[in-house]
Amino acid sequence: MRMYDLIYKKREGEELTPEEIDWIISGYTTGDIPDYQVSAWAMAIFFKGMKARETASLTEAVVNSGDQIDLSRISGVKVDKHSTGGVGDTTTLVLAPLVAAAGVPVPKMSGKGLGHTGGTIDKLESIPGFNCELETEEFFNQIEEIGAAIVSQTGNLTPADKKLYALRDVTATVDSIPLIASSIMGKKLAGGADAIVLDVKTGSGAFMQKQEDARELARLMVDIGSELGRKTMALLTDMSQPLGEAVGNALEVKEAIKTLKGNGPEDLTELSIKLGAAMLVAGQYESDLAKAEKRLRKLITNGQAISKFKDIVRAQGGNPEIVDNLDLLPQAKNIYELKADKSGYIENVTAREVGLVAMALGAGRAKKDDPIDPAVGIEVTAHRGEKVETGDLLARVYYNSDNQPAEEIQRLRDAYTIGSKKPEELEFIIDLIE
Amino acid sequence: MRMYDLIYKKREGEELTPEEIDWIISGYTTGDIPDYQVSAWAMAIFFKGMKARETASLTEAVVNSGDQIDLSRISGVKVDKHSTGGVGDTTTLVLAPLVAAAGVPVPKMSGKGLGHTGGTIDKLESIPGFNCELETEEFFNQIEEIGAAIVSQTGNLTPADKKLYALRDVTATVDSIPLIASSIMGKKLAGGADAIVLDVKTGSGAFMQKQEDARELARLMVDIGSELGRKTMALLTDMSQPLGEAVGNALEVKEAIKTLKGNGPEDLTELSIKLGAAMLVAGQYESDLAKAEKRLRKLITNGQAISKFKDIVRAQGGNPEIVDNLDLLPQAKNIYELKADKSGYIENVTAREVGLVAMALGAGRAKKDDPIDPAVGIEVTAHRGEKVETGDLLARVYYNSDNQPAEEIQRLRDAYTIGSKKPEELEFIIDLIE
Repeated sequence: MRMYDLIYKKREGEELTPEEIDWIISGYTTGDIPDYQVSAWAMAIFFKGMKARETASLTEAVVNSGDQIDLSRISGVKVDKHSTGGVGDTTTLVLAPLVAAAGVPVPKMSGKGLGHTGGTIDKLESIPGFNCELETEEFFNQIEEIGAAIVSQTGNLTPADKKLYALRDVTATVDSIPLIASSIMGKKLAGGADAIVLDVKTGSGAFMQKQEDARELARLMVDIGSELGRKTMALLTDMSQPLGEAVGNALEVKEAIKTLKGNGPEDLTELSIKLGAAMLVAGQYESDLAKAEKRLRKLITNGQAISKFKDIVRAQGGNPEIVDNLDLLPQAKNIYELKADKSGYIENVTAREVGLVAMALGAGRAKKDDPIDPAVGIEVTAHRGEKVETGDLLARVYYNSDNQPAEEIQRLRDAYTIGSKKPEELEFIIDLIE
Repeated sequence: MRMYDLIYKKREGEELTPEEIDWIISGYTTGDIPDYQVSAWAMAIFFKGMKARETASLTEAVVNSGDQIDLSRISGVKVDKHSTGGVGDTTTLVLAPLVAAAGVPVPKMSGKGLGHTGGTIDKLESIPGFNCELETEEFFNQIEEIGAAIVSQTGNLTPADKKLYALRDVTATVDSIPLIASSIMGKKLAGGADAIVLDVKTGSGAFMQKQEDARELARLMVDIGSELGRKTMALLTDMSQPLGEAVGNALEVKEAIKTLKGNGPEDLTELSIKLGAAMLVAGQYESDLAKAEKRLRKLITNGQAISKFKDIVRAQGGNPEIVDNLDLLPQAKNIYELKADKSGYIENVTAREVGLVAMALGAGRAKKDDPIDPAVGIEVTAHRGEKVETGDLLARVYYNSDNQPAEEIQRLRDAYTIGSKKPEELEFIIDLIE
């Protein structure tokens, strides 16, 4: 085989065979195929796409390029959840204890945040004492004992994807749907998932801003899953508005606790229930979504969900008292109250901008090794569609600097559009694709 | 500027500014922009194209990347001719003396052949003693004295194009019309041409097999020329059949001599006259093509064209007696006569295949440093549209090996299609684009 011929074949829109895709990915991983050929190939994929079967082959090749986590020690169907990245997305913190309380084993491996979206590990590490770096034995033991553990991803998982992603990132080939799909699904499969539930976000705060692209991505990932024998379901959800109210690490932990106690924001609660229900169905723990939803709601009202959260915090060295006393979580020194400078309807709150302001305040990382501040962030108290009067509270800015972060406050103000007309209601959970 | 943004911009089909294109080409030449970004950019150009203005900027950037030949010492308009590569294309050997005899200065810099197409320098070097490596001073003096000199290209001309071409060659991005156009025009402009005549070939033996692609390429190069202040004219010609009869170095020199004497193959004679006439008009040596053609035909019949060829050979150290005694040119030891194995009309002679067989016999190079044999090659004696009987001569194979080159002979036989119907006549000179 010659890489030239395979670039040419893809450029002409032909389908690559599994053997050809394997050959490319293993040659790229070893360094036998140079970056300059792979970037041209990736650009050809951007323009010509890939069939579901091809994307499944690429996913498999990515999985086979490195270590694979063996979760067979844990009995039961392991269902993993993945979200394509949003602003203030606290669902993992809610879902892990919630579905564990329903009897689903949760061997959760998560990453740190980058850019305008936060990472689950960063959020959990804002809990005093919480340890995300468990040894393998500790990890499995904890799952056997309490049903769930959440750790930083370790091991050499999908090195081909890491190399390919870094290349795509500098060659304007990131936003290719088959390349995104194989990257996400490759990581989930290498992580040992038997079934997968995806939260594919669309709208201004999401990576896939256009709904048709997000739908295509969701469809393709569900098809790859079924091609590779993993039941996969995807929710298509709106991320043009921030999810919940909190954006920032400790702030989101507080919000997750409230949600698990039954008094969290409605959108976060609903999305967590819907994703959890899909996880129960995908893992064959329930026969239909309605039954699964009912069961999960009950686990919130009867206190079992929050109790499981407490168990996890305790097991991983964190202070479980935070659950009953939220003030034990890191607190920012200063709070700025952003108030409406005119009356009207909130027509829009740009989620991406809110995420970027939170990052600028120190809640997230612009570069991989930037330090983060667990206490800072934003609470979005007034939402799209609400009517506000001049002087009404729009948001709270939590900051630790001595001076008011004037620039960030201005950007946050600009993220709000207040107008005279009540905006159309947005569909929040748009579709379920399976 | 960031290369990422410029790849993205081109990927989205936007037009790059001259400053952006300059920045890319100079950064790539110095090595500041890596191959993997440029190959992704080239693939984006393959899919999204470039406007004439953009391609002109790219051409200028390529010219500015290296040395530029200063021909200002030579008085008169310098008209260069370029052919996009064909099989058995002997036109340069005919044109240089022909237009020089008409008073056009011919400071010709040529290349060696690669693949199935031959190179002018290889052909001339089959003349005993002929020297293509003149010093600059010798080159200019010869043009002053006899009006023409043909040398190997030297100097660091268009290094950006060399680097970019090598990259395109391994990333399946060669056949992008704006990239081809800027590469050709860049070389011509760096070579110091005031006006340019292009022979853009189409058909199975040509690089651009489809006529609409060849036409687009011709149109674009003419537009670039006019954008950059160089009168440019292009002939669109058919290369589905080999041009003339000879394919091979000494064989083509013989054919050029015959043509300059007025008894060469009709197609080669006509193409040479048409291209020469375009050169006279482009350089403002004649006001219209008909007059120019008439003048050139006369230079053949009155012997001035062949006399100029003799002058060039003598001036560059070659044996001028070859003109009157073709047997002084290298002779192959053996000749195989390929004969028709059935009766019928010759429906097709695949030019590309004839070129490849000649290369395999030793007339051309598969790799850059392969040695070549000046004597070997093919004489295509029966052409498309002719009626042949079993046993009639189709072609002569000139070879120097002791054994008959059975494989090459078979391939040459397969290049002929003999059928029962007289094929439609092909238009040979399809269009003039200016």
